[in-house]
Amino acid sequence: MRDSEMVELRGHIFDTGVFPRVLGDVIEYGGDYRIERLEPGRGPADESVARVVITADDAEQLSRILMRLQTHGANLVTPGSAVLRPAPMDGVFPDDFYSTTNLDTQIYVDDRWIEVANSEMDCGIIVTETPQGFAARTIAMSDVSAGDSIVCGASGIRVIPLPGTAEATRGSGQFEFMSSQVSSEKPQTLLVRQVADQIRQTKAAGEKILWVAGPGVVHTGAAPAMVKLVEQDYVDILFAGNAIASHDIEAALYGTSLGVDLSKGRGVPHGHEHHIRAINKIRGCGSIAAAVEKGVLRGGIMHALVSRGKSFVLVGSARDDGPLPDVYTDVIEGQRAMRAALPGVGFVIMVATMLHSIATGNILPARIPLVCVDITAATVTKLADRGSMHATGIVTDVGLFLEQLVTELADHQR
Amino acid sequence: MRDSEMVELRGHIFDTGVFPRVLGDVIEYGGDYRIERLEPGRGPADESVARVVITADDAEQLSRILMRLQTHGANLVTPGSAVLRPAPMDGVFPDDFYSTTNLDTQIYVDDRWIEVANSEMDCGIIVTETPQGFAARTIAMSDVSAGDSIVCGASGIRVIPLPGTAEATRGSGQFEFMSSQVSSEKPQTLLVRQVADQIRQTKAAGEKILWVAGPGVVHTGAAPAMVKLVEQDYVDILFAGNAIASHDIEAALYGTSLGVDLSKGRGVPHGHEHHIRAINKIRGCGSIAAAVEKGVLRGGIMHALVSRGKSFVLVGSARDDGPLPDVYTDVIEGQRAMRAALPGVGFVIMVATMLHSIATGNILPARIPLVCVDITAATVTKLADRGSMHATGIVTDVGLFLEQLVTELADHQR
Amino acid sequence: MRDSEMVELRGHIFDTGVFPRVLGDVIEYGGDYRIERLEPGRGPADESVARVVITADDAEQLSRILMRLQTHGANLVTPGSAVLRPAPMDGVFPDDFYSTTNLDTQIYVDDRWIEVANSEMDCGIIVTETPQGFAARTIAMSDVSAGDSIVCGASGIRVIPLPGTAEATRGSGQFEFMSSQVSSEKPQTLLVRQVADQIRQTKAAGEKILWVAGPGVVHTGAAPAMVKLVEQDYVDILFAGNAIASHDIEAALYGTSLGVDLSKGRGVPHGHEHHIRAINKIRGCGSIAAAVEKGVLRGGIMHALVSRGKSFVLVGSARDDGPLPDVYTDVIEGQRAMRAALPGVGFVIMVATMLHSIATGNILPARIPLVCVDITAATVTKLADRGSMHATGIVTDVGLFLEQLVTELADHQR
Amino acid sequence: MRDSEMVELRGHIFDTGVFPRVLGDVIEYGGDYRIERLEPGRGPADESVARVVITADDAEQLSRILMRLQTHGANLVTPGSAVLRPAPMDGVFPDDFYSTTNLDTQIYVDDRWIEVANSEMDCGIIVTETPQGFAARTIAMSDVSAGDSIVCGASGIRVIPLPGTAEATRGSGQFEFMSSQVSSEKPQTLLVRQVADQIRQTKAAGEKILWVAGPGVVHTGAAPAMVKLVEQDYVDILFAGNAIASHDIEAALYGTSLGVDLSKGRGVPHGHEHHIRAINKIRGCGSIAAAVEKGVLRGGIMHALVSRGKSFVLVGSARDDGPLPDVYTDVIEGQRAMRAALPGVGFVIMVATMLHSIATGNILPARIPLVCVDITAATVTKLADRGSMHATGIVTDVGLFLEQLVTELADHQR
Repeated sequence: MRDSEMVELRGHIFDTGVFPRVLGDVIEYGGDYRIERLEPGRGPADESVARVVITADDAEQLSRILMRLQTHGANLVTPGSAVLRPAPMDGVFPDDFYSTTNLDTQIYVDDRWIEVANSEMDCGIIVTETPQGFAARTIAMSDVSAGDSIVCGASGIRVIPLPGTAEATRGSGQFEFMSSQVSSEKPQTLLVRQVADQIRQTKAAGEKILWVAGPGVVHTGAAPAMVKLVEQDYVDILFAGNAIASHDIEAALYGTSLGVDLSKGRGVPHGHEHHIRAINKIRGCGSIAAAVEKGVLRGGIMHALVSRGKSFVLVGSARDDGPLPDVYTDVIEGQRAMRAALPGVGFVIMVATMLHSIATGNILPARIPLVCVDITAATVTKLADRGSMHATGIVTDVGLFLEQLVTELADHQR
Repeated sequence: MRDSEMVELRGHIFDTGVFPRVLGDVIEYGGDYRIERLEPGRGPADESVARVVITADDAEQLSRILMRLQTHGANLVTPGSAVLRPAPMDGVFPDDFYSTTNLDTQIYVDDRWIEVANSEMDCGIIVTETPQGFAARTIAMSDVSAGDSIVCGASGIRVIPLPGTAEATRGSGQFEFMSSQVSSEKPQTLLVRQVADQIRQTKAAGEKILWVAGPGVVHTGAAPAMVKLVEQDYVDILFAGNAIASHDIEAALYGTSLGVDLSKGRGVPHGHEHHIRAINKIRGCGSIAAAVEKGVLRGGIMHALVSRGKSFVLVGSARDDGPLPDVYTDVIEGQRAMRAALPGVGFVIMVATMLHSIATGNILPARIPLVCVDITAATVTKLADRGSMHATGIVTDVGLFLEQLVTELADHQR
Repeated sequence: MRDSEMVELRGHIFDTGVFPRVLGDVIEYGGDYRIERLEPGRGPADESVARVVITADDAEQLSRILMRLQTHGANLVTPGSAVLRPAPMDGVFPDDFYSTTNLDTQIYVDDRWIEVANSEMDCGIIVTETPQGFAARTIAMSDVSAGDSIVCGASGIRVIPLPGTAEATRGSGQFEFMSSQVSSEKPQTLLVRQVADQIRQTKAAGEKILWVAGPGVVHTGAAPAMVKLVEQDYVDILFAGNAIASHDIEAALYGTSLGVDLSKGRGVPHGHEHHIRAINKIRGCGSIAAAVEKGVLRGGIMHALVSRGKSFVLVGSARDDGPLPDVYTDVIEGQRAMRAALPGVGFVIMVATMLHSIATGNILPARIPLVCVDITAATVTKLADRGSMHATGIVTDVGLFLEQLVTELADHQR
Repeated sequence: MRDSEMVELRGHIFDTGVFPRVLGDVIEYGGDYRIERLEPGRGPADESVARVVITADDAEQLSRILMRLQTHGANLVTPGSAVLRPAPMDGVFPDDFYSTTNLDTQIYVDDRWIEVANSEMDCGIIVTETPQGFAARTIAMSDVSAGDSIVCGASGIRVIPLPGTAEATRGSGQFEFMSSQVSSEKPQTLLVRQVADQIRQTKAAGEKILWVAGPGVVHTGAAPAMVKLVEQDYVDILFAGNAIASHDIEAALYGTSLGVDLSKGRGVPHGHEHHIRAINKIRGCGSIAAAVEKGVLRGGIMHALVSRGKSFVLVGSARDDGPLPDVYTDVIEGQRAMRAALPGVGFVIMVATMLHSIATGNILPARIPLVCVDITAATVTKLADRGSMHATGIVTDVGLFLEQLVTELADHQR
């Protein structure tokens, strides 16, 4: 049998987003709910009331979910009394102490609700007797003394959410840690595995994987990883610019990228001219495919794409040298070529390019999942701010990301 | 008389946040609503239905709100038929063309709904006659020809939102531009004005303004601006570390900050020792206040605070040189001093410091509004990820921000 | 009469850059030098010897320059003996204590050189007598006791530079604070003033000022500032893309930028379509100039440029919507147009755009000074890494920078 | 037999750093030099003259080195005449075309030097006959026509360096690509290998490896990698704060970091309290070592350090919760403990922490090599700006970096 409790919500619970947040949290944290009563106010000025029964697998999970819901202002219909236990030693709380939020809080002691003074997060609540009755305040862990009366568990506690207005509450969660969507402080190996899973699912569904990549892939030394992905059929189409193709070909012909020796990590004399020489050579051949055919181009990402019969769309920009003969110098024609390549695409991976990521985001239906990998959080933010809210952002090093992705995809195959 | 229309929502509209988002958007965009019908599914598996009447001041505003609600899947109960108008010339849409989202879309033409092929945002919808009947697809502005039949206005259009799960939808808005909370791409002068307003309101309410500041304030040459804010009573308390105080005093004694001449923007010989010499001098005096009294310290932020009788709490860190005699070298004692200074604070401004901002965020009740100003978006993100979700982040240059704030506060006084 | 001392350098002082660094530092810090002796080793394996007489205006400046040169391994030919003074109180050094570097150091005491143990920067040197003679070690300020013997002044001190190889030393300065070229920790108001000075000098020389600008100018609310700069003849040519022009026109027609109301700082319903509608309107007019002439476009940056007869080159990219009729959709033609606009340009200012900054950097002679302003240090770094090493980078908020620049230029005129 | 050529330098070649840069480049790019003549100007106003013979293994390498030296103004004593060849087809240069810099350039044609008009980098030089004689200008690759006369090779070309002043030239290289020290656009796998090599060398020399680490190690899911490094004896000492130890212990006890489930990448209900509960538990045990002994702590980085008898110094900060009983709450005592742990350290690796990296940099002798790994370039820049110029910065993802480092160190062992 499972544990359950009834919570009540009152006030502007719809337009402030409180009500769905309560239901969403219950589901996300593995519980279940049943709406017992729902009296919506008709217009924006009217208050609403809802009562919801929350169910969880065991008492501890239920207690956690209830503590969570409290921060949204969903308090127990029958809250019970606060449980007090003495601190076992100086500077140590009882094991099951109630850990505070930074919201105003009340506790039920001696048959009435009393305010907890000095709201502060990550503290305990100490209860003392005064001539006027019981008093409660937050106390830091290092300030507690052995024997102090500390609130434990979750019963008899009420948290008052910030007075939400529709406007204020939109987008700003209530009390929560690590809720930002875009952050480098996420478990990276896990993210790599999730991308690998989606790649495999896409291939299993018979759909194409579209990559959008910038020259950082070559500069960070990740071209060999990218080549492996092409050879293992994980790259069906590449959208890119003149830069990644030029530097990839520069690396194949001269071993450098932007003049930096990729095997030593430093410049070679007059090496900046390598990329322009590489472009000149391919222009002389007529096209990248022709250069592959003539044996001029024998390695790298573009060579792998041509050899495996994969397609690519290179669209130019004002900063291009050359450009390579395959590059669309007219950007509107380039957009048309990109659009024409979309049918059949089931997953999009964008790495290390702002311009071509936004360009692709512009023409992509929202229903196609997309992942954007960049060392700069701003790239992901900008993509989202330009209408591609469905993008999953991964703020990480592109070179190491691709290395790990190859490993992850290979591991799974064995 | 105002315009109104009824929209209907069906499906998992509560736990996916769709319903409150609809109501919130109506309010945010200046409209009004009346819930006509609400049939909540009882548990997570059940579908809900809602009908809401939307009212706006005029037809254009209503049309805009309805286009907005469509992206949440709130479609008109009586959608009408799509209006078609010919493109006036090549590459130009009719004036009131319907501008697409990247969501799947249908239009009502010839008494039935037809799919719009090739979902793509910021396009028009072209309707053509085929042997099988009418067909619709998105078309880019540059591809339209004079006379093409283009969908105009908002009637007869239905947008299919992404199949939302509680998890997928949480936090990720649907189709929207510039929805990220933290971005440097915001109108900065406006943000400065808003901070100035809040400063004035706080003073008017008789509450204190707490500043939390890092050494970037001095390095960026903004100490004079900060001094003006102190002198005009806009700084009641300063929470900081050894660094800002040392470099402020270094600047007052030697004209440099971290050895950089603030009037020339470059280093002076062996100037790195200035800050350590400055600290030595103050240690010799016994305290910052004593140095002011003895006439040793005659300018800068710390001098202004002492002179105006304002309080400050300096808490040390492992990277401190010296430190200054006023610095709490024990961080737990420092936290206690910070807590003791909180009563009466009505507004908190954090500039250019990650450590002390998070330290302050840790002990601050959520009800006190706080603004965090930093050139790095990551500082603001980290603050929010550590429980201070109520922080308003401003990603901007701290030096120029303070200059503008002084101007803004002064302008208003005149 | 001025003070002077002779220093000696030995070893690989040419290919490691030590010798020129010594001469350069003398000049930079206001001293003078005379090369007394120079015996270059002929090949890379041979040691060189140099003796240089350093002159300064007074003893204190000379002492500072000599302390500086020590960190390059340029030690006094006649170093003298270390001066020892007692610490005046616990935790306080004598006033003129020698502040250490993190390089290995020796002091001359009792007629011989002794090693200073525990190299650590920003410390003092304490000398103690032991049965084996004098001993010296670094000591932190907080660890000194009243009466401790502390080394003061600069005489009798020898610093051993890191064993430099040509490779190791290249680019990495020795001990130095704030030597990085690109940092947001610089006095910003000063930088604004320097840009203002260069603008005035350029105009005074009868040369043109070329601006390269991205849409951030409009998003950050700085378009009015930019308009003022155009009206005051500080903008002769603008290189840009479709985005800034579209959003500027969007702002002029609808008051929004990317759908964000610039006067309120938040979105308007379905506002994302404003920019595409704005583009459609201008396409209907035929050109931006035609839209100005017809009275359709009455404000903003593009309007100001057209009205004042200034020129602009807009080059498209793959992410463009529309684009505006004035945009070169062929990037190679766009480059040609940019090249054609260069003659007469005497100063280039790049704000908030990576793509067009690099595109302009590509075609710009190195002799034309250029300033790159961006909130992201990476933009400036990338520009430099692509051959534009002569760029002065300013990492700051573009919106506030332009506001301050207008103020600075106006102040000067009065 | 090897190829050689004599170059001459004139002007302010010492204080502008030109002379050593020439010698350094010769060595770096694998050539050799012999100083034939050196006439230094005695004071800052005097010009110097130097003649240097450059030798290389073959003509091509010599030609590359000479092209490089040209950008410093070191031109051939006997430059020869420019070689002209016809472009083979439209838009393609001859194979060995001279690729331009953005510096002013002259070519020797028809027995005299003529200016190359329109300095622009990455172009070719076209020579045409005019009524006034030969004329030369840069030409973009896409603008060349079949048969155009294009300058090839390196002879007969003279590059005029920017008029260098001591001040202007300091720190700013001349024309160069990818010369910035801190950039994420570097080959990452190579950098990991270099760190692995230095770790092995340090251990082979019997020296200790000191790690300085921030909580990002745990948040990014890299704790297991760090544990492996400890177990393989690659971590002798850890300098850190309360945060990494708390979150590591949180992860060991609850599977979360800052409340984020590390195996799923998302929050657990009320999970923010995990870290405070973890701290409380360890405080109850008395110390981390006691918690390991009692079997309370059974995994993670701190457990590994205790189990393997490695030492750690945890120094607190104002933002600490708890803190853990092992944390020095007095920062000056913490600094003393850090200093006491330094003897024997031969290599320092700093990952994901600004505060403790700078704190360690402050007390570290410059002779101990150090590597700073962070996803934010600003952390590395700040470290360098605070006197630790000898730091090698790696801008990358900390989580993936540690994973790769483990792989690299393990691969080598097999």
